[in-house]
Parts: sequence; C-alpha cells; structure tokens
Amino acid sequence: MDRIAQLEARLARLEDEREISRLIAAYGPLVDAGAAEDVAALWTEDGVYDVDEIYLEGREQLARMVRSSAHQGWISGGCAHFVGPPHVTVDGDTAIAVCHSLMVVYQDDRFVVRRATANHWALARTDAGWKVTRRTNRVLDGRAESPGLLRQGAYGEPAFL
Amino acid sequence: MDRIAQLEARLARLEDEREISRLIAAYGPLVDAGAAEDVAALWTEDGVYDVDEIYLEGREQLARMVRSSAHQGWISGGCAHFVGPPHVTVDGDTAIAVCHSLMVVYQDDRFVVRRATANHWALARTDAGWKVTRRTNRVLDGRAESPGLLRQGAYGEPAFL
Amino acid sequence: MDRIAQLEARLARLEDEREISRLIAAYGPLVDAGAAEDVAALWTEDGVYDVDEIYLEGREQLARMVRSSAHQGWISGGCAHFVGPPHVTVDGDTAIAVCHSLMVVYQDDRFVVRRATANHWALARTDAGWKVTRRTNRVLDGRAESPGLLRQGAYGEPAFL
Repeated sequence: MDRIAQLEARLARLEDEREISRLIAAYGPLVDAGAAEDVAALWTEDGVYDVDEIYLEGREQLARMVRSSAHQGWISGGCAHFVGPPHVTVDGDTAIAVCHSLMVVYQDDRFVVRRATANHWALARTDAGWKVTRRTNRVLDGRAESPGLLRQGAYGEPAFL
Repeated sequence: MDRIAQLEARLARLEDEREISRLIAAYGPLVDAGAAEDVAALWTEDGVYDVDEIYLEGREQLARMVRSSAHQGWISGGCAHFVGPPHVTVDGDTAIAVCHSLMVVYQDDRFVVRRATANHWALARTDAGWKVTRRTNRVLDGRAESPGLLRQGAYGEPAFL
Repeated sequence: MDRIAQLEARLARLEDEREISRLIAAYGPLVDAGAAEDVAALWTEDGVYDVDEIYLEGREQLARMVRSSAHQGWISGGCAHFVGPPHVTVDGDTAIAVCHSLMVVYQDDRFVVRRATANHWALARTDAGWKVTRRTNRVLDGRAESPGLLRQGAYGEPAFL
C-alpha cells in the first residue's frame, strides 16, 4: 500500500470513531430536548433499545418513548441524561461502544442521581452513516448483568444479554 | 480535488473538532483550579458567558468571576465542574457545541450535585485558534429554556436566547 | 517537509491523542467490571496509581486492588467510576492528561456521589502503545492539592505531588 492509501485508511478509522462518538454525544441533548424523531434516527429502522424497565424495537417505539407522558414529565420537571465519553471499537462495518451514563433529575428543589447505568452500544455502518443497531443499558445497582455488559463493551464484544 | 487535497480537507475537519473538544475539556479543570486568566483566555476578547445567575462579557469579567470570593469559596470548600463530552458542529470558521455539565460540591461531609446544566457553546476561529464567542448555560430544573438550548446545540444552531 | 509527510505528522498527533483518550475511557468500564488484569495493563509494568487512600505501584498491586474484597464489594453493591472527557497534551513520547471523575455508588436504595476527584495522568509511549506511568488522584473536598493537580494537568505539566 502506498503512503497516500495508508493515510486514507488511517484517517478513515479516526473518522469512523469520530462519527460514532458524535452520535453517542447527541443522545443526551436530544432526549432531554424531547426531540423524538431525532432520537429515533440515531438507531437503524429496526434498532433495539433494551433497558431494564423497557424494551423498544424500531424507530416508532423509540420516538413514542420520548413523547410519552413519563418522559415528558422528566423534561418538564428537570432532567439530565448525562452520557460519558465512549470507548469505541470499530471492526469493519460494525462497532461496539461502551460508556457510563447518569440520569440526574430535579426533585424537591435539589438534584439527585436517579440512576447510574452501564451502556453497551452495537452499531452498524449504513447508507445514512453509523447507526445504533442495539443499545443495552443496565442499572449499576449491584445486578450481575451490569458489570458483564461493561466488560463486553470494553472488549469490543456484543452484549451477551 | 486530488487525493492529497482531499486528505488535507478531511484532516482539517477532525483537527477543528479536536481543538474545540479540547478547549471545552479545559474549562472544568481550569475553573476548579482557579486559573482565572486561563479560563478567560478560552473566550474571545469580548466573549460572553450567559448563565442563569450571571451575565459576563469580556475576559476581564470572566477572570473576575473566577477570582470572586463566591467562586474561591467553592474551590476551598471542594468543587467539581464536571463537563460532559461535547457534540460539535463546525461550519467554516464558526462552530456550535452542546453538552451537559454537573456542578458537584462538597457540603456537610458529602458530595451533592448542586446543578445539572445545559451548555450551548458558540465558537469562532481566530488568529489564536478556536475561541468561545458565547456560552449559554441554563439549569435543567424544568425551565423551558434549557431543553430548547440542548436542541439548538444538537442541531448546530445558535442559541435563541 | 512535503505535503504527504505533513499529513502523516498531523495524523500521528490525532492518533496519539485518540489512543490516550481511548485508554482513559477504558478505565471506568474495566474497573467496574472487575477486570483486574485489564485494568492493570493500562499502566506500564511499574506504573503508579497514587490515590488519597492508597498508593499502588506495579501491575500486581493494581490487579490486587481490583480483586480486593473492598473493591468487589463496590461492584456487588452497585458502582460507577464515571470518568470525564480528558484534556490531553502530547509531547513526543510522553503525555499528560487531566479530567474529573465521579464515583457513584448505590446505597440504601438510591445513588449517591461518594467522591468527586481530580485525575492527573502521566503517560508514555511504549512498544505496547501508550501506557499510564503515574496517575495521581485527589478528592475535590477542599484539600489544596486537588486544584493544583487540575492546573498542572491542564498545563500539560507533571504532577507536583
């Protein structure tokens, strides 16, 4: 491979990781803004968001979650979905990312951490750029699944759940 | 455009985003260190920091805020301005970034989240590199402005405030 | 220097920072997963982790910390070592990074911030990639060392401790 082709390949790797990190960094602002369609568009058409409390499949369910009275109540009460910097592992046209997130809410005139969560992201390169195929979140409250998710994520492996 | 010119353009975009993310990552450490001049130098000469409680314009006001007895009291009591990973949108010589931040303080022998905040950053390329022209922060306590700021930020649009 | 060599040098800088940021982003998931050897492998063979409560030197001590009943108790009780986005300064074959971290634990059916901490990272380029040579953490509870660490980190200087 010549020098220019090597540069192109190295740059493409950085660009992939940059795009994935940027997608993940969009989630918190968009979900706390109530931007239902934009949140849904982070996933593939049939992408999955598997959380402790809910299992969402496809963009319509994702958008409906954001529009739900429960979620709108978080926004109107005061809410931060604070997503940490992801560790990204790209393998061709798929990728795995892992990070922590905190859900901080305003209650009784003060801020409290409602949840600290393990986030495992599986992503795929599509015609519309990188998209989430499956996001698996588990609360870090001592349940055994959560440390396992973090490990799989850091290893760049799919979620075992 | 030839292959080398394409590489240069793609790399320049990554470099812009890297410089902006790095600038934003400097804010928390510098402000918690009380480095008044360094904090101020993240902004342009006449840059604005528009927060719920205060409106600062220009580097002298920014530096004075860091040197104020109020801010020094946070430092001496124990304080973390924890700024999340930004979502950055560059458009030529200006850029918009958005992120959450948490202000965590040490009070009565424990740490509490004093504030969770929506951060909207407008930046400009200057002779001295990227600088903040206007940072708009609003607490996520249910006030309507805060989700709006997050949305504008994620869309790469100027703050409406 | 010709255009291709310039591109190679600029890209190498981004790659260094990316690798260091990715290493730091691995710490939280790995330590909360209890992946003792993987945590230890983020450091050089004789790397140091200097924390308020403990001083660890070398990979065996690092791995033993993760395997300790104290740390395993955090995991089984529910724990997030939430590490913020680092500000990285590379200088040839060494680098300095700085960030905040929060240790959030699950206690009495709710999440609390047990610690907010200043993180100063010194790193070196090795045959196995970038590794931590010395990580210095101090709690942000008002002790004078912590703001100093943040300042040295943001300046790209070694920790004075």
